[in-house]
Amino acid sequence: MASPSNQEAKIIDGKAIAQTIRSEIAAEVRALSEKYGKVPGLAVVILGTRKDSQSYVSMKRKACAEVGIKSFDVDLPEHVSEAEVINRVHELNAHPEVHGWGCLLRCLWLHKFALTPIIKVATSTGILVQLPLPKHINEEKVLGEISIEKDVDGFHPLNIGKLAMKGREPLYLPCTPKGCLELLSRSGISIKGKKAVVVGRSNIVGLPVALLLLKADATVSIVHSRTDSPECIIREADIVIAAAGQAMMIKGSWIKPGAAVIDVGTNAIDDKSKKSGYRLVGDVDFQEACKVAGWVTPVPGGVGPMTVAMLLRNTLDGAKRVIEQ
Amino acid sequence: MASPSNQEAKIIDGKAIAQTIRSEIAAEVRALSEKYGKVPGLAVVILGTRKDSQSYVSMKRKACAEVGIKSFDVDLPEHVSEAEVINRVHELNAHPEVHGWGCLLRCLWLHKFALTPIIKVATSTGILVQLPLPKHINEEKVLGEISIEKDVDGFHPLNIGKLAMKGREPLYLPCTPKGCLELLSRSGISIKGKKAVVVGRSNIVGLPVALLLLKADATVSIVHSRTDSPECIIREADIVIAAAGQAMMIKGSWIKPGAAVIDVGTNAIDDKSKKSGYRLVGDVDFQEACKVAGWVTPVPGGVGPMTVAMLLRNTLDGAKRVIEQ
Repeated sequence: MASPSNQEAKIIDGKAIAQTIRSEIAAEVRALSEKYGKVPGLAVVILGTRKDSQSYVSMKRKACAEVGIKSFDVDLPEHVSEAEVINRVHELNAHPEVHGWGCLLRCLWLHKFALTPIIKVATSTGILVQLPLPKHINEEKVLGEISIEKDVDGFHPLNIGKLAMKGREPLYLPCTPKGCLELLSRSGISIKGKKAVVVGRSNIVGLPVALLLLKADATVSIVHSRTDSPECIIREADIVIAAAGQAMMIKGSWIKPGAAVIDVGTNAIDDKSKKSGYRLVGDVDFQEACKVAGWVTPVPGGVGPMTVAMLLRNTLDGAKRVIEQ
Repeated sequence: MASPSNQEAKIIDGKAIAQTIRSEIAAEVRALSEKYGKVPGLAVVILGTRKDSQSYVSMKRKACAEVGIKSFDVDLPEHVSEAEVINRVHELNAHPEVHGWGCLLRCLWLHKFALTPIIKVATSTGILVQLPLPKHINEEKVLGEISIEKDVDGFHPLNIGKLAMKGREPLYLPCTPKGCLELLSRSGISIKGKKAVVVGRSNIVGLPVALLLLKADATVSIVHSRTDSPECIIREADIVIAAAGQAMMIKGSWIKPGAAVIDVGTNAIDDKSKKSGYRLVGDVDFQEACKVAGWVTPVPGGVGPMTVAMLLRNTLDGAKRVIEQ
């Protein structure tokens, strides 16, 4: 059993780190635009009017605008056919460059109204399809149609396969897992030779983050809903990635003193003291973890902001591969 | 520390299990041939004259013949260009059906010399490129050119990606990992909820077997050359898959009493008592393991024969998908 240390854990400020990364990206986009007269683009495809999806999408579009990435809105009705969605994806795949008035105006500003570079204005686009899709649409089929060169979410099975395999490099890493590793590295936490445990095995977080940690030479264990006594394995780990979607399941006594704890969970629990009637908590009992861990991420303000920052990073990197080739 | 049990481990006889599987495959091939007048085919591509590769290839071709699978020999010289190898792979990809005298003669026999089904004789082929390839050939590039419908080795990154992802199914599972799980299931060892450890993380065995165990609901840990004190993790495991390529590294004291130990290692060590001057041993100290484990595979005669049996199984399953569609 872990004995609480006297020292409080360092809080990893994901919001601040994400902001630093967004400034770095903005500077690179500016440099790219000045050198080549081109900015990266991101086509954000959304189906229907789910409130949570719309709020994520507007957050992503706003983040793009802030760093100078041109986002293209593809808003489709809830009842659009699968064939039509795939058609739109094919159209976006085929677009090597996209011109638009928004882009032109931004570039006028970026280039201080000098006209020469504007003539070259063009955008190489990543494609993001906001999940979940309505039930009548086959998610696997739609995501599988996105060209892997534009799969900035990194969810294409070919990208995942290359992520899994030694000696292969995917074109894009999934954003949340990449964000977790970035939080570790920017906090000075080394991975090589460390014992890491991943709690959860989803396609979006648990599985790819386990593969990333393995590639970074950690000894990796994956625990999940079928695991008896996960605390026995978690207690041995120097690095804990919590991505189970279970509010505060990881107690302070489950954590090895001094461990780095990255909490990916975002769970709404009832809280009558709030106007909304709920508050967000992670998969880790944050108060308890603070007394035992060496580092811990808060929820909100930990991994969440990193996901969007990594999406911008992927979009920029994809555009650089095309523009600088 | 594990205390030796009084009971000796059950030896898992891979040779006998593989023989049973080969008989099952032969019966299915016969049934397919009788019903459709078609047999599965396997194109085995080999470059150069490496003795070990040639011996593996001739073993595979012989195994095909025994179960009624038609093998096609593609023997290329050591110094063939990469472009030429890729050309041959493309030709094989394009072959929906292959006719040949060998096939015709076998079918004459299978159909007791009745002529009607012979007219339909055709073979849907899997493609296997024997590794390693000569140094001037890019292995990743060549393997990536094999159509995933024909990738009976299961090494294409798209197949590995689908193996990794929840809710996705690859067309083929890599042969050795699939053989390990078949040994467990045919020995009555359940996986769900068990603690499994994989020693080694190669693309061919360690990594895919870890992904398979995870999909089968085991709690999975992967230890490797960068792991400190792997014995501490191995000692907790109900199922050990040893695929490190280190002769007898896993001692009896590393094994949990009653665990199932699958030894994938095949290492040659000096043995002056043998005419050849060497003998083959696994990654596990077999004599010690026998005193502690519940089940253990010998080397040779454990996992080895299963790899070829699973290659035949994959080839048959691929052909059935085409023929029965």
